[in-house]
Amino acid sequence: MKIINKLRLPEDIKKLNLNELEDLASDTSKLILERISKIGGHLASNLGIIEITLALHYVFNFPKDKVVFDVSHQCYSHKIFSGRVNEFSNHEEYKNASGFSAPYESDYDSFCIGHTSTSISLGLGLARGRDAQNENYNVISIIGDGSLSGGISFEALSNAGIYNKNFIIIVNDNEMSIAENHGSIYKNLELLRKTKGEAKENYFKLLGLDYKYIEEGNNIEVLIREFKKLKNIDHPIVVHIHTEKGHSYKYAVEQKEKWHYSPGFNIETGEFLASKGNYFGGVTRDFLIKKLNENKNMRIITAGTPLVIGFNHELREKYNDQFIDVGIAESHALAFATGLTKAGAKTYIGLNASFMQRGFDQFAHEIAINKLPLKILVYGSGIIKNNKTHQGIFDVAMLSNIPNLVYYAPTTEEELLNALELQFEDDKNPIAVRIPKGLEVHAKNYVYKNTFFEFNKYDVLGSDKEIVLIGVGDTYFEVEKAKELINQKLKRDYVIVNPKNITELDKEFLDSLNNKTKFVITVEDGIINGGYGQKVASYLSKYKIPTLILGVDNEFVDMDQVQNIYKKYNLSADELLKIVESLIK
Amino acid sequence: MKIINKLRLPEDIKKLNLNELEDLASDTSKLILERISKIGGHLASNLGIIEITLALHYVFNFPKDKVVFDVSHQCYSHKIFSGRVNEFSNHEEYKNASGFSAPYESDYDSFCIGHTSTSISLGLGLARGRDAQNENYNVISIIGDGSLSGGISFEALSNAGIYNKNFIIIVNDNEMSIAENHGSIYKNLELLRKTKGEAKENYFKLLGLDYKYIEEGNNIEVLIREFKKLKNIDHPIVVHIHTEKGHSYKYAVEQKEKWHYSPGFNIETGEFLASKGNYFGGVTRDFLIKKLNENKNMRIITAGTPLVIGFNHELREKYNDQFIDVGIAESHALAFATGLTKAGAKTYIGLNASFMQRGFDQFAHEIAINKLPLKILVYGSGIIKNNKTHQGIFDVAMLSNIPNLVYYAPTTEEELLNALELQFEDDKNPIAVRIPKGLEVHAKNYVYKNTFFEFNKYDVLGSDKEIVLIGVGDTYFEVEKAKELINQKLKRDYVIVNPKNITELDKEFLDSLNNKTKFVITVEDGIINGGYGQKVASYLSKYKIPTLILGVDNEFVDMDQVQNIYKKYNLSADELLKIVESLIK
Repeated sequence: MKIINKLRLPEDIKKLNLNELEDLASDTSKLILERISKIGGHLASNLGIIEITLALHYVFNFPKDKVVFDVSHQCYSHKIFSGRVNEFSNHEEYKNASGFSAPYESDYDSFCIGHTSTSISLGLGLARGRDAQNENYNVISIIGDGSLSGGISFEALSNAGIYNKNFIIIVNDNEMSIAENHGSIYKNLELLRKTKGEAKENYFKLLGLDYKYIEEGNNIEVLIREFKKLKNIDHPIVVHIHTEKGHSYKYAVEQKEKWHYSPGFNIETGEFLASKGNYFGGVTRDFLIKKLNENKNMRIITAGTPLVIGFNHELREKYNDQFIDVGIAESHALAFATGLTKAGAKTYIGLNASFMQRGFDQFAHEIAINKLPLKILVYGSGIIKNNKTHQGIFDVAMLSNIPNLVYYAPTTEEELLNALELQFEDDKNPIAVRIPKGLEVHAKNYVYKNTFFEFNKYDVLGSDKEIVLIGVGDTYFEVEKAKELINQKLKRDYVIVNPKNITELDKEFLDSLNNKTKFVITVEDGIINGGYGQKVASYLSKYKIPTLILGVDNEFVDMDQVQNIYKKYNLSADELLKIVESLIK
Repeated sequence: MKIINKLRLPEDIKKLNLNELEDLASDTSKLILERISKIGGHLASNLGIIEITLALHYVFNFPKDKVVFDVSHQCYSHKIFSGRVNEFSNHEEYKNASGFSAPYESDYDSFCIGHTSTSISLGLGLARGRDAQNENYNVISIIGDGSLSGGISFEALSNAGIYNKNFIIIVNDNEMSIAENHGSIYKNLELLRKTKGEAKENYFKLLGLDYKYIEEGNNIEVLIREFKKLKNIDHPIVVHIHTEKGHSYKYAVEQKEKWHYSPGFNIETGEFLASKGNYFGGVTRDFLIKKLNENKNMRIITAGTPLVIGFNHELREKYNDQFIDVGIAESHALAFATGLTKAGAKTYIGLNASFMQRGFDQFAHEIAINKLPLKILVYGSGIIKNNKTHQGIFDVAMLSNIPNLVYYAPTTEEELLNALELQFEDDKNPIAVRIPKGLEVHAKNYVYKNTFFEFNKYDVLGSDKEIVLIGVGDTYFEVEKAKELINQKLKRDYVIVNPKNITELDKEFLDSLNNKTKFVITVEDGIINGGYGQKVASYLSKYKIPTLILGVDNEFVDMDQVQNIYKKYNLSADELLKIVESLIK
């Protein structure tokens, strides 16, 4: 480190000369590289924006002035400059700074944010809130080119275009979304880059905004000079800055998509440390490829996250007509997919559970009311090792309460393939499949039954109905493990249930518990309210069978190891054993 | 009628000469005016688009060619031309054609749709589905200028701009949203109208789309001539057509906002028939005005529906700085309002429950995770006399399962004012208030308690806990009526409960039912799954108290009188009496 350890941050930044600023940028880059190489993170975007962030800290007066980072996965250097160096230099303290902006960490962070395209809305809100409070400061929103495909950013720009006070919108254009960009808006950005901002056709000017182009987006001197001119500007302006994603780390520059988000890696070689990956994601991808080959009218839609579905660059090239990435635009993706389905194409849409929240209205309206057999693949559902903004805990409460929509939560590879096959064949209902997470699993006692009817029946194991445990999706394995522990310790063969279809209750089975069952325990890895357990408890109410509902209890789930979170909410086998023990005492 | 009764529709349209077409348009206009004057509907938009629709039917071959109407509230003439004349000429048959496109009525309708800005996505989906099926037909999406502020339309245009086959996007520009348009995108539309489409700055061309401007949008001859050139076009094109909202009916032309949606009216005088209006909407508006006057830092946000909050043109002018209509852009509106709140402004957002579905991600993410005290007003929640696309039945399942978000469902005027006051004062939580619907109501036995603590306690009436009835929001009055009926008929003073805060259970009260209560009945006017009743039933499970949950049972609710829908789902007082009778037999 050349300089960073000698500085008090943020106070000292404004005192540095250019060489020192460059040293600080270089040190910052190293800290970020080091942290992500150890615990994973968004490398390429963070390396590309260090100079912009440093110039902002040099010119503006945070936290009086406000900055909003879109998605905020690129805020690492901002955290370092605003006094969180230890959280990036000391492995022990990594956990004290999340990978996203976090007001609970620092007043320098405006919002806890993890989804795209909202920074202009939030910034415009701050600006008009400032006006309402009769205050006086700069508001800066930073948005990546990849987020401009999201409709909210357009809604916000169109409103910023009729606003008339201080508001600075920095478009950080690194020519990339998570994968490549999609949509004609990117042709305009390309034209603007090529003409150094001079082209007459200008999306931002058309929307009534002042506009400035900066070509050297990784040059601190240039950025400081230009930002000084913008400080205290009396109207909204878009500052379009050309940066290099992955800047200063050659592997990231060469392979930007791979390095958008990385697990730990070897800095010297650029090799990712063994990442377990998602086994079931691979199973699903292979299923999809087989079906794509067999069905020329099949289409797969994604919204900016092709790798989530396992479609790397080569597969996207190969299935060019059949795999459609619409860019980051989840609402459009869902309505668009509805249209394809209506026209008769076998249509899939694959999204992360957390990003799917963008489409509640499309699920309820376009898809469910029209009851079209769109095939929905839900990735990253339930509890995952991720920030609270990326947890998938709302998927069941969101999807399973909408009429006409069917939601399957398979557990094993056999069940997953069964669910995918049923989904593929069905031409009557929109069906969502919750892709299991984690490692290869085959349920020991699983009997493969390839009929739709059976899929609506619970899989039931065990002979003693005194206590019944129902495990939704991935939590079923904890229930299965708990069954073994109970067998060993309590010598009881309590019944366990895998519901599979979580929009249905197997009423025949539940009816059979009448006068037999003392307790039912439901286990799920999502929010309890609106989830599956409450449906079971409500149904069993008439039989006076007490139902203990386990899941996430009315709070947001923070980043942790999945097993720790399971333990916290009593979803793990050990905790389930304890609960059963206490119930039969 | 000049001609319409002599025609077989749609077959005869292509045989008509220009005079006959104009007669047909005139007849159609009369039928629409007559129907809406009797049963209400979207008058002005329907009158403005008759000529476009007729020219489309003359030139294209529906239903082989496909047309998608945005929102679809302007599809009346399309319904008439495609063979549903009786449903518009015969009062008895009005009910057989909804006010929105409906595939279950006719193959000429592509989707059941009622929300804005999705027609381009759906149309692009149809087009790419057509390609996947190796078929050959025209796909036409019709979108109003007011819907172009919605981000999904931008997402779709940006994707249409990189598509290269037949797709015709008609922008029906009547210079109006529901109210006036908001956003800089409308300055570009204005420029395009002024220059007859010649301006270099062109939103659609910038997005890579071919473009044509038609000034005389109510001239059948011109439209037919131009549409003939477009038929079977081999690439996407935007056809920007200038029309007159309310065309041919002078009152609607003069007062476009008033006539966007009207109840029944007198055709001669343009006077609306006595419409009961929403009493509680007025109470809320008056509360807001008082607070606006007292608090200069207060802001009210809406997304294109100011009249829903009771802010007519005069009030909007008067509170120009404090009342912000962002145009139809619900997601932006919510994120923007979050920004204002963060900056310290007292910020309200008022939306219809059904349109709020556009913002699930903003509720869960920007608002709830950041736990900012945004004040949310929910109109048109629960069961209303409207199309299935506009029912508010998901509000409780959507909002009440998100951690940190508080949802109040007051019933009487006193409670509403109490809830609004608590919401106003609170600076810790996002609080939503469910505005009651219907006529003035003061609960007979209501005791006004102006403390936050009390608002989290159930209001309880009655002495006999053998049976307990819990009524959420507006259904509480049915419960109150049922209590009287039960008193009269069964001579029992069963306990009834008004929960008020529907994100909380009053556990102290519910605990008190242990060993006392035989049945609890919950009553709510929304979807059962994910609703309040399931929370009550789940909690009472441990006490083995059977809970009967009444509400909308896993289906979409169709247009009907509210009392009929209540009866269907056993929510009305008479049905509740019957249920109680059967329980105590």
